[in-house]
Amino acid sequence: MTREWNYGDSKYETLVIDDLSFGYRITLNRPQVRNAINQTMVEELTNFMSGIEQDEQVRVLVIQGAGGHFCAGGDLGDMLKAAQDFEQGNPDAFKALNLSYGRLLVQFARLPCTTIALLEGTVMGGGLGFAAVADISLCSASSKLAMPEVSLGLPPAQIAPFVAERIGLNQTRRLALTARKLLAAEALTLGLVDQVAEDSEALGQLLQTELHAIQTCSPKAVRATKKLLVNLSRLGEAKHAELEQQLLEAAEAFNFAVTRGDGPEGTSAFIEKRHPVWVTSHKH
Amino acid sequence: MTREWNYGDSKYETLVIDDLSFGYRITLNRPQVRNAINQTMVEELTNFMSGIEQDEQVRVLVIQGAGGHFCAGGDLGDMLKAAQDFEQGNPDAFKALNLSYGRLLVQFARLPCTTIALLEGTVMGGGLGFAAVADISLCSASSKLAMPEVSLGLPPAQIAPFVAERIGLNQTRRLALTARKLLAAEALTLGLVDQVAEDSEALGQLLQTELHAIQTCSPKAVRATKKLLVNLSRLGEAKHAELEQQLLEAAEAFNFAVTRGDGPEGTSAFIEKRHPVWVTSHKH
Amino acid sequence: MTREWNYGDSKYETLVIDDLSFGYRITLNRPQVRNAINQTMVEELTNFMSGIEQDEQVRVLVIQGAGGHFCAGGDLGDMLKAAQDFEQGNPDAFKALNLSYGRLLVQFARLPCTTIALLEGTVMGGGLGFAAVADISLCSASSKLAMPEVSLGLPPAQIAPFVAERIGLNQTRRLALTARKLLAAEALTLGLVDQVAEDSEALGQLLQTELHAIQTCSPKAVRATKKLLVNLSRLGEAKHAELEQQLLEAAEAFNFAVTRGDGPEGTSAFIEKRHPVWVTSHKH
Repeated sequence: MTREWNYGDSKYETLVIDDLSFGYRITLNRPQVRNAINQTMVEELTNFMSGIEQDEQVRVLVIQGAGGHFCAGGDLGDMLKAAQDFEQGNPDAFKALNLSYGRLLVQFARLPCTTIALLEGTVMGGGLGFAAVADISLCSASSKLAMPEVSLGLPPAQIAPFVAERIGLNQTRRLALTARKLLAAEALTLGLVDQVAEDSEALGQLLQTELHAIQTCSPKAVRATKKLLVNLSRLGEAKHAELEQQLLEAAEAFNFAVTRGDGPEGTSAFIEKRHPVWVTSHKH
Repeated sequence: MTREWNYGDSKYETLVIDDLSFGYRITLNRPQVRNAINQTMVEELTNFMSGIEQDEQVRVLVIQGAGGHFCAGGDLGDMLKAAQDFEQGNPDAFKALNLSYGRLLVQFARLPCTTIALLEGTVMGGGLGFAAVADISLCSASSKLAMPEVSLGLPPAQIAPFVAERIGLNQTRRLALTARKLLAAEALTLGLVDQVAEDSEALGQLLQTELHAIQTCSPKAVRATKKLLVNLSRLGEAKHAELEQQLLEAAEAFNFAVTRGDGPEGTSAFIEKRHPVWVTSHKH
Repeated sequence: MTREWNYGDSKYETLVIDDLSFGYRITLNRPQVRNAINQTMVEELTNFMSGIEQDEQVRVLVIQGAGGHFCAGGDLGDMLKAAQDFEQGNPDAFKALNLSYGRLLVQFARLPCTTIALLEGTVMGGGLGFAAVADISLCSASSKLAMPEVSLGLPPAQIAPFVAERIGLNQTRRLALTARKLLAAEALTLGLVDQVAEDSEALGQLLQTELHAIQTCSPKAVRATKKLLVNLSRLGEAKHAELEQQLLEAAEAFNFAVTRGDGPEGTSAFIEKRHPVWVTSHKH
């Protein structure tokens, strides 16, 4: 790659960027919270992707997590802050942040280069969104994947459309409505991931195989193909208004849940390690 | 569940309703005809679902069949009656009934609670429609699933859109056009069912696991999530007019087949245990 | 079949047609180039299908390849000719031919009879299009399936929408963007084919089973069902304008690639058995 990039640790607070010579690797880098996505991370990812999407020399983008986990989903700290904002009179405290996450996934889905998600450990909520949207999702056998939102009193609002696009509506309904945890093998059967590696080393080998395949493919043809394919889907330009409306409604539902619905009880119970009030004690 | 319900055997002729404390179980109860769906059953199911859909305390609805079978599809008696009505001058004898079945599936798909189909034995035609539309489809290993309609001279008119929404158009084409019988394991591979249990007892255990998972999930978040998900699909409010038009065309095609097409020959041959005229004797 | 047809070798240059008594078998017959699809083949297939689509006695159409391979995709000779035409001043040299192939797949998808693709050996590019569009795809274990276009500098323009309709957008993205070769077992897992046979003989037995099933089904009900099902999809009449627009954009992208993009370099490298210029030598 002739062009020089200068993405150092200094530029981004939540990301580490590595130059792969014909593309980049993003590492989500908040290992202390299993790389949970906060507002800063959304902004930095948006910023980085905007910087590369016009660059024809970028042929691949790999996304992974630091510290053995991919991503635990949305940051609880942001949610607690939104609840406080709400109490101080902002009724839409969480709407914009939630919507910005959906738009980030749309941007990622539409990137003209080939994208690869490298999944390890925790792949939850928003983390699962990246797995669903990537062109290629590679997964280590020890990964646990889920949309745990409803068990926390929240809808998996911005993620559901992308999971549904990948594995179909019915399979998504089961995952989303029961907060069911999937092992890697089950995620493979559902088509949520494309390949499973036995361990971290094997995962690295799978990545090398894909990178090698990408190098044999014409960058121009790849860009033309990806544009045609994305435009066939609900993520394409042609359906932009419809998707934007769906993400907006989803953001409103999330905002409602996190401020006036079961979100406060769900997140409090999670933090206090107790059952939320809706867990009934009935026997069957 | 604080509220008292009074759904006794006296109220419904074709259904038995059990209170699960945080939801209900419907048993299709016409075991003498493998729980085939007649006009009364459509009306009673519609009536029951209309009664619970606004009730936030109903968190789950389980549907199963009596006597070791889930459901054999549409009732032949209704079809023979429609053929008589047609001969007495009613050209649309079967259209309304066929359409009412499609609308029942739409209503079931849009229920705001989590829905579970418990599949055993015969799961045919209309019975397969419920399996396709449920959020969670659990299946015993001995089940046989099929859309046998075309072998009876009829199109699987109201069911096909729901099967296609679940397993895709191509897989649905193969099932619908060849009347192919699926074993439970094949239905699992196709994604038509979510899990297979070895026997009836294991099926009950799978159900308990799902019911337990549902209890850990916020009812409000589940309702918000299900609404968002259904609205992404062809079954949602946003596409209502398009779906209604498709169901209407399907009802017209079914009505034609059952009155003037191959339906009379197909159902007669079935009752008389002989091959219909279209079964050729050619060798290949 | 009472009616007499006279499709002899003399009528078609690239096809052999066999009478199956209740339908036909088409053999793509250019074994010297693994049955690659040239302009003549597109025209002859279009002509043959137009001749049978109104005939209610045709209940099945089987498509296979001569000489142990199904089809290697588009003919390289046509592409080199298009490149010459472009140099002589025709900017849209390849657009019409590319578009005619997409329209052929639409016509095949909408045929009112049941269609079966019998896959052996090479199933590439355009060949994969038929596999995706057929109602039933049967595959021998030794088959290799791929969309190799991007490795030749071309987008799999007219094929991608049909593969996406069958296996979903994400799976299609991986196949199309990496030119990955699939073994039959992987194609089965993805749902790209419906059944895999151990060898050629077993493949013939699978075909007989399907033909037998088709004979037990009412031709009228099959036609009504297929019409309803196709109309649910992007391939149906209701979405005709949208699909036509997508195929047109795809044809333009293909035409651009084959004349001014990476197509000339990709095809030259292929013929000269060397790496195209975009294959980087970087180590990772």
